[in-house]
This record gives sequence, structure tokens and C-alpha cells, in this order.
Amino acid sequence: MPEGDVTIFVCVACRRARADLPDGFDEPGKTLAEALRERIAGAGGATPVETVDCLAVCDRPCTVALAGDGKWTYLIGDLDAETHLDEIVGAAASFAASANGIVPWKDRPASFRKGVVARVPPLPARQQGSRP
Amino acid sequence: MPEGDVTIFVCVACRRARADLPDGFDEPGKTLAEALRERIAGAGGATPVETVDCLAVCDRPCTVALAGDGKWTYLIGDLDAETHLDEIVGAAASFAASANGIVPWKDRPASFRKGVVARVPPLPARQQGSRP
Repeated sequence: MPEGDVTIFVCVACRRARADLPDGFDEPGKTLAEALRERIAGAGGATPVETVDCLAVCDRPCTVALAGDGKWTYLIGDLDAETHLDEIVGAAASFAASANGIVPWKDRPASFRKGVVARVPPLPARQQGSRP
Repeated sequence: MPEGDVTIFVCVACRRARADLPDGFDEPGKTLAEALRERIAGAGGATPVETVDCLAVCDRPCTVALAGDGKWTYLIGDLDAETHLDEIVGAAASFAASANGIVPWKDRPASFRKGVVARVPPLPARQQGSRP
């Protein structure tokens, strides 16, 4: 499986309301990005995890995007490191293995089925959907 | 201005509730895509308008994405041909003219300020942000 076929973007600008904290919010993307990098490196992987200053999905912290050259891009919200680490790593692996970024519904974790914010096709000149 | 630096994706799967119609909905993306093509061709332009079967933003019909090689992609919802045709064409031109897809806030039409669904950075290998 070519690991280079997926990049995980993690929004680190997302603020999540947390009444139990002094500031009234936390920033789950920062924790998530760090946890993803540790998990992937710990498994000997090399999938890039890129922090992004804002994915503009501020009402669904935190948001992640899976992207790859010539593939559909998927944006998923409502994720955090405590609950969804395994599902994000698994979904990224499925995305990397897919021809065009479209992972069969049955292979998508629950958080990705419920959390989809949007998807965008690749630019026509870069589409890989017809490849085997 | 290199027109090739923007593709307008229009979701044609979006259904918008319309109690006044027999089916109870219309599909504003189909009308919008056609109107955009006519407007752009009528002005002598060549900006590609690509219909997409679903951008997965079903609760904000209809949704459009502006994308270009090496640029940020922007998803904008709540658009239709009756109200927003000029603003979409103008925003696409601004996007095409931008170095990296990020159009200054003051140059964004009202519908694009209010309607933003999400944005996604280009893949690291394709970023053009440092170009003049």
C-alpha cells in the first residue's frame, strides 16, 4: 500500500466548548495531530500529518481532511484523540489504498459516516479514478 | 489572468425544499451549472464548470467548490443561480488571480463570506503559496 497516497490534515484552530476548563474551551486538534503522529510513527508508518491553521469548519471541532494526489478529498468533523484515533488511522489507510479516495461505505468507521462535512473531487487533469 | 487556475465544481445532487413545487424540492445545482457555463462562455471566458454528483453538503443546497492546482480549495454553500451568479463568477476570477486560492476578505462577495462550508490546503508537494 503506497503510504504516500494520503495526507492527513488536522485543523489546529478548532475550539471546543469545555465548561470544565478555565478558558471554557480546549483545542482538540493540537492533541489529535500529536497523537496521530505518535501512533503512525509507532507503527512504523510514514503517513504525513499536516496541521492546518483553519479548515473553516469551526462549528464541528475538530476537523480532519484526507487528501491525496488525484483523489477525492474528504473532510470529517467531530473528531478527537480520545475517541477516534484508531478510526482515523484506519480510515487513512483505507483512503491510501483506494484508487480515487472513495472508500466503500462498509469500510468507513462510524465517525467518518456521521462526521462527513464535505468532499471534493480531484481536478479533472489529476483524476486517477480510471486507474486499476 | 490565467483562467486555467480555477475550476468551479457545482453539486448537482443538492435538493432544496420547495413547498410550492409538485415534488416538494428543486435541484438548484443543475440550473446553476448551466447558467454559469452560459455566463462564462458569453463573456468569452473558458473557466471550466464541472458538475459533481455529490459534494456531501446536503443541508446547504446548493454547494460549489473553487479549486486550482496547488491552491487551497474553498467550499461554499447556500448558492443559487437566481441570486448569486455574478458573485460566483467574480469570486472564481479572484480565486484564479490569487497565488494560492486565498482571496482577501474584502474581495469576497457576501455569499462567500457567509456561505463557507470548509476549505482545504493543497497537498504539500503542490503548494504554490510561495510563488509571487
